[in-house]
Amino acid sequence: MRDLNEDTLTKETIRAVTGGKDGRISAVSEALVRHLHAFIREIEPSQAEWEFGIDFLTRVGKMCSETRQEFILLSDTLGVSMLVDAINHRQPEGVTETTVFGPFYVESRPELPLGANMSPNETGVPLFVSGTVSDIEGRPIAGASVDAWHSDDDGHYDVQVGSDLRMRARFRSDAEGRFWFWTVRPTFYPIPNDGPVGDMLAAQGRHPYRPEHVHFMIAALGQKTLVTHLFIDDDPYLDSDVVFGVKSSLVTRYRYETAGEAPDGSISLRDYLSLEYHFVLSPAA
Amino acid sequence: MRDLNEDTLTKETIRAVTGGKDGRISAVSEALVRHLHAFIREIEPSQAEWEFGIDFLTRVGKMCSETRQEFILLSDTLGVSMLVDAINHRQPEGVTETTVFGPFYVESRPELPLGANMSPNETGVPLFVSGTVSDIEGRPIAGASVDAWHSDDDGHYDVQVGSDLRMRARFRSDAEGRFWFWTVRPTFYPIPNDGPVGDMLAAQGRHPYRPEHVHFMIAALGQKTLVTHLFIDDDPYLDSDVVFGVKSSLVTRYRYETAGEAPDGSISLRDYLSLEYHFVLSPAA
Repeated sequence: MRDLNEDTLTKETIRAVTGGKDGRISAVSEALVRHLHAFIREIEPSQAEWEFGIDFLTRVGKMCSETRQEFILLSDTLGVSMLVDAINHRQPEGVTETTVFGPFYVESRPELPLGANMSPNETGVPLFVSGTVSDIEGRPIAGASVDAWHSDDDGHYDVQVGSDLRMRARFRSDAEGRFWFWTVRPTFYPIPNDGPVGDMLAAQGRHPYRPEHVHFMIAALGQKTLVTHLFIDDDPYLDSDVVFGVKSSLVTRYRYETAGEAPDGSISLRDYLSLEYHFVLSPAA
Repeated sequence: MRDLNEDTLTKETIRAVTGGKDGRISAVSEALVRHLHAFIREIEPSQAEWEFGIDFLTRVGKMCSETRQEFILLSDTLGVSMLVDAINHRQPEGVTETTVFGPFYVESRPELPLGANMSPNETGVPLFVSGTVSDIEGRPIAGASVDAWHSDDDGHYDVQVGSDLRMRARFRSDAEGRFWFWTVRPTFYPIPNDGPVGDMLAAQGRHPYRPEHVHFMIAALGQKTLVTHLFIDDDPYLDSDVVFGVKSSLVTRYRYETAGEAPDGSISLRDYLSLEYHFVLSPAA
């Protein structure tokens, strides 16, 4: 393998990267080199452009921290995350649709009882969220783990502003598969755009906004774990979500409720919003 | 752009990334999304594999520092650097061939007079390097900037071990286009393989070695800057260079010289090696 040139380099690189024992690693390495070289051959980068690319990826890596995952943002904004999501969720009709996981989930979120307020100290309009978890046959699933997380009414997640955990919790569905909790209304927000991904969006003439949504991750024995959002039907960014994540079946509507006794028997001293959704899980493979 | 699925996601992503004012950015973004999505569609990564990919790239970024450029290593070991090099050096017959820049060049290297020893405190066999710089018509180039850098006889560059600058300098060719300097013989070496790129090489069943070489960067007014190496003909890794950089025209041979007066009139108290090469630059566009 001396004297490799534009004609022979790709073939020889593929030979070199496919000598390992793991067939999957060989297959992915082969495809990676083939597609990556095809990209390079097509755009014919100058040395300066190659250096820019190296520096861009380095800056993306440097921006990553415990509370910021710039490579996930890059994957999200290039449509890769939704493509991987689609490939992994070719699921039966009737199952709740999936969307991106996003970079803001936190493993150590609190576990709260049904009916608890997961955002007790937030400003913003009170929001009562309720719904059910069932299997594809319509049978309620008891004891499902229902994780919810969202931004505050300024459009920031707790981890972005370095605060204690807020606006996130895990609940368990009751014997009839029901769940309910209190929180505050989130808002549309820009993804973190003070880093290289923000520079990329600006260069591509794109806004950095995601429409208002509440994240859900719902897990139950014998079912595929569901990762999705609920969106709100009057949001200005529903048709230009910077991460390509909106699905019509996930777009819901707030009910405007007056102060008084709420559906869970608690008393709301303020007018509030309510949101209801019925999640349907897909059986595990 | 709601309800994007496997069929529609790539087209919509391309629409989104090509709205900027800079035509080159649009073209590169379009090609990037098209090839990246084609790669994803072909390998159909699981969510866990996607997470591995995100984590791998993050680790590559985190490994980068002032003295370590892991993304260049990744580019080098995937054949991308040599492909970019080939694309940018479709040069006339007779011009010295190019090879990878590598991650170890240091801008602040010393400038030394011709004949100086750029490795005065090194162990290892003394090496006398000499040669000429000429243009494609064979005319000597006076005052060319001749940068040389290489590993020590343990296979480490100064910057890898955090030492002061060693085994690197810039010289200027004389009125006849000649240059000469003293150093020590380098050795073959593994590229830094204690990071994610090393993990990748191991998974791909590859050794991490580069054959022994001296880096050169030669610049002169009116000429394209030449970035290349000289290799040595008896090296065990010439045919399996981990970065695909070896070209026959760059493989040279040491002469074994006995102690005494050297070609530059200096006296070597030890037996030494000598190496001679005639560099030919390509006219600037």
